[in-house]
Amino acid sequence: MKITKLAQGISLKRSLEGGNEDQLAVVRQVLADVKSQGDAALRAYTEKWDGYAPKHLRVTQEEIQEAINAFDDQLYQDLTEAANNIRLYHEQQQRSGYRVELGDGSWLGQRITALDAVGLYVPGGTAAYPSSVLMNVIPAQVAGVSRIVIASPAGRDGKLPAGVLAAAHILGIDEIYKVGGAQAIAALAYGTETIAPVDKITGPGNIFVALAKREVFGEVAIDMIAGPSEIAILADDTAYPDEIAADLLSQAEHDPLSCAVLVTTSEQLATKVAEQVEQQLMTLPRREVAQASIENFGAIYIAETLTEAVAAINSLAPEHLEIITENAEQVAQQIRHAGGIFIGRYSSEPVGDYFAGTNHVLPTNSTARFASGLNVDDFVKKSSIVYYSEETWANNAPKIARLARMEGLEGHARAVESRGWEKE
Amino acid sequence: MKITKLAQGISLKRSLEGGNEDQLAVVRQVLADVKSQGDAALRAYTEKWDGYAPKHLRVTQEEIQEAINAFDDQLYQDLTEAANNIRLYHEQQQRSGYRVELGDGSWLGQRITALDAVGLYVPGGTAAYPSSVLMNVIPAQVAGVSRIVIASPAGRDGKLPAGVLAAAHILGIDEIYKVGGAQAIAALAYGTETIAPVDKITGPGNIFVALAKREVFGEVAIDMIAGPSEIAILADDTAYPDEIAADLLSQAEHDPLSCAVLVTTSEQLATKVAEQVEQQLMTLPRREVAQASIENFGAIYIAETLTEAVAAINSLAPEHLEIITENAEQVAQQIRHAGGIFIGRYSSEPVGDYFAGTNHVLPTNSTARFASGLNVDDFVKKSSIVYYSEETWANNAPKIARLARMEGLEGHARAVESRGWEKE
Repeated sequence: MKITKLAQGISLKRSLEGGNEDQLAVVRQVLADVKSQGDAALRAYTEKWDGYAPKHLRVTQEEIQEAINAFDDQLYQDLTEAANNIRLYHEQQQRSGYRVELGDGSWLGQRITALDAVGLYVPGGTAAYPSSVLMNVIPAQVAGVSRIVIASPAGRDGKLPAGVLAAAHILGIDEIYKVGGAQAIAALAYGTETIAPVDKITGPGNIFVALAKREVFGEVAIDMIAGPSEIAILADDTAYPDEIAADLLSQAEHDPLSCAVLVTTSEQLATKVAEQVEQQLMTLPRREVAQASIENFGAIYIAETLTEAVAAINSLAPEHLEIITENAEQVAQQIRHAGGIFIGRYSSEPVGDYFAGTNHVLPTNSTARFASGLNVDDFVKKSSIVYYSEETWANNAPKIARLARMEGLEGHARAVESRGWEKE
Repeated sequence: MKITKLAQGISLKRSLEGGNEDQLAVVRQVLADVKSQGDAALRAYTEKWDGYAPKHLRVTQEEIQEAINAFDDQLYQDLTEAANNIRLYHEQQQRSGYRVELGDGSWLGQRITALDAVGLYVPGGTAAYPSSVLMNVIPAQVAGVSRIVIASPAGRDGKLPAGVLAAAHILGIDEIYKVGGAQAIAALAYGTETIAPVDKITGPGNIFVALAKREVFGEVAIDMIAGPSEIAILADDTAYPDEIAADLLSQAEHDPLSCAVLVTTSEQLATKVAEQVEQQLMTLPRREVAQASIENFGAIYIAETLTEAVAAINSLAPEHLEIITENAEQVAQQIRHAGGIFIGRYSSEPVGDYFAGTNHVLPTNSTARFASGLNVDDFVKKSSIVYYSEETWANNAPKIARLARMEGLEGHARAVESRGWEKE
């Protein structure tokens, strides 16, 4: 791993593939077909791309039960405990509206309501992560969303991964469709004979899924289009090099485009981490992926001072940040921009990916400057409420009418002034 | 205005112009030029499209003072009172993070921080609304955003509208640039020699501005791309037809694509409102616009029952909803989807556009199903925090490692397991 002195303007930003025109044309065709032909289009595309002809699009209770029966008991228990932890953390995000009394009987309000229906896209194959089911569904449940749907492509055997079904089962979700790709996004956005449309679509996916989500955005809400994973570690000479290296590699193994960066005040740590990364890479099953990531985007920066290191981290605005230093909690208070912060030696980042309770859907590619991890707010919307009494209206109508006329909107002024006359 | 019996599946959705390929090509060129040439490109485009050569891009203190001096005192006072009302309402939206203790010294947290810098785009010419300055800036100020910038195209005289400068002055905003169109969005997103980049861009604009915002989305955050204004009124026979008609027209006068709909249980009201709309249209200064809107998208629906009317409103999910019925407050409680709700005869919708305190930037085109009006949450982001003690780590590491291995991510398992050994 390359070691360099810290310089101004480090960026974790990578030039990411936005999809090409050909892919976009395919996606638009799929969207149009599903919109006009519904289930028939879903079946045709599933047969064409997923390699099997679905008898029924919705997963049956028998299929779910069969998967649960075959699923490892210990893992089921681990997933259940993780789900409970995630629920506990997200329950703190529940909010109620408010009411402001204005006097004279008038008031303003804010009402917070859950979305009616949400769809979670779960990628198929080796990228099927039961943990994603927990992380996407639980905030929606805590928000009070009454209908939560999962769409995921089945394998050639027509089955969904048991882990995905187990995670859904633990959460009480049983509206699950065996549909993937852009056609799944189309079905969730527009609806078909079998699949009623939803109001928001979340969850990761390949380039076709990402393009389809962008296309239906506006028709329905979508979550952010997440980029490859990132980790930045801020460490001093109290950190153990093998642990830092292992944490860097845990992000690097996700994707050749993943990014793992160490910022440290210790030259010695820098050298030893670089050695450890090389050594640990040798036995890592996903070595090829991790190595590419380290070569492409891995870096170790040496900072003169902790202050300089903190400034560098804030300019990075990383998805994940580990702080393994003396007084790590105080250092954490100086961080302005990071999706998820992991404090101290024992808070290795995968702790948050699976189990601690925080969400693992976090803003990538420096968007932590302005974006947040998935949370309960993402599944509610707010309505404002105005109640003006006659008295409040009478006191303020002239001001409102003046402001409207200033903007050239006479109709607005007249609407306000139309009240209060003696009428038949 | 056309009167019809209420039927299933009313939609306020209009097929809205999304911009064509030529416009997009222009926007992309502008973005690229500003990115590479900075201020020089801003000056060139301003001269080309706004018809004057800017001596300085930033509005000077003298220009601001000159505008304030010439501005109407009464209006300045009205704007100030409106600003205070808006601040009062939005202050209720301030939030702090939280901390969950897990035992054994471990804890999880959520930290909420304001964005560092936000840019507000204010359209030029007749569409320059001082009220928009209040509605966009105040939530950002309440959130704690430290740098708030305004960009707006000057007229051929090189001046910005006095009302816009007055509103900014009332709020203490003095970083104001005379730049408009896609070039303004580019400057805010990428930065130039004069204009430092921001993290989020809000505010309305023409099709070039909207396309530019879509293009820079991801680089920076943007607010929703708002469509033409909408109003739905739910009224029974207690409502006055002239008031309902005036309120419908107050939205219709915005844009030929605006939409004004009455849903009523009273046939008599329906007939009289239709008459009143025709009559009031005759003297409305913006008659041509309002008439087109009413013809294109205006409608009166008669419902058999209030329940049916409420269901229709919920399926519409209108931007603005007025409820002028008996027990209007109770009726309001049955509304699930609306951007802003105005209860009772005296809460004419323009009350909220200018003065009451709620935000007038609201979700259009049925997106109130999943979106909210502009609010303080739009100017903050949340970071999650994990602190695991050695004990908590020891109790849970095996579970986390199992979950990671289930997903085929051995590097994740190893990272967690790397802790806790006796090391040199």
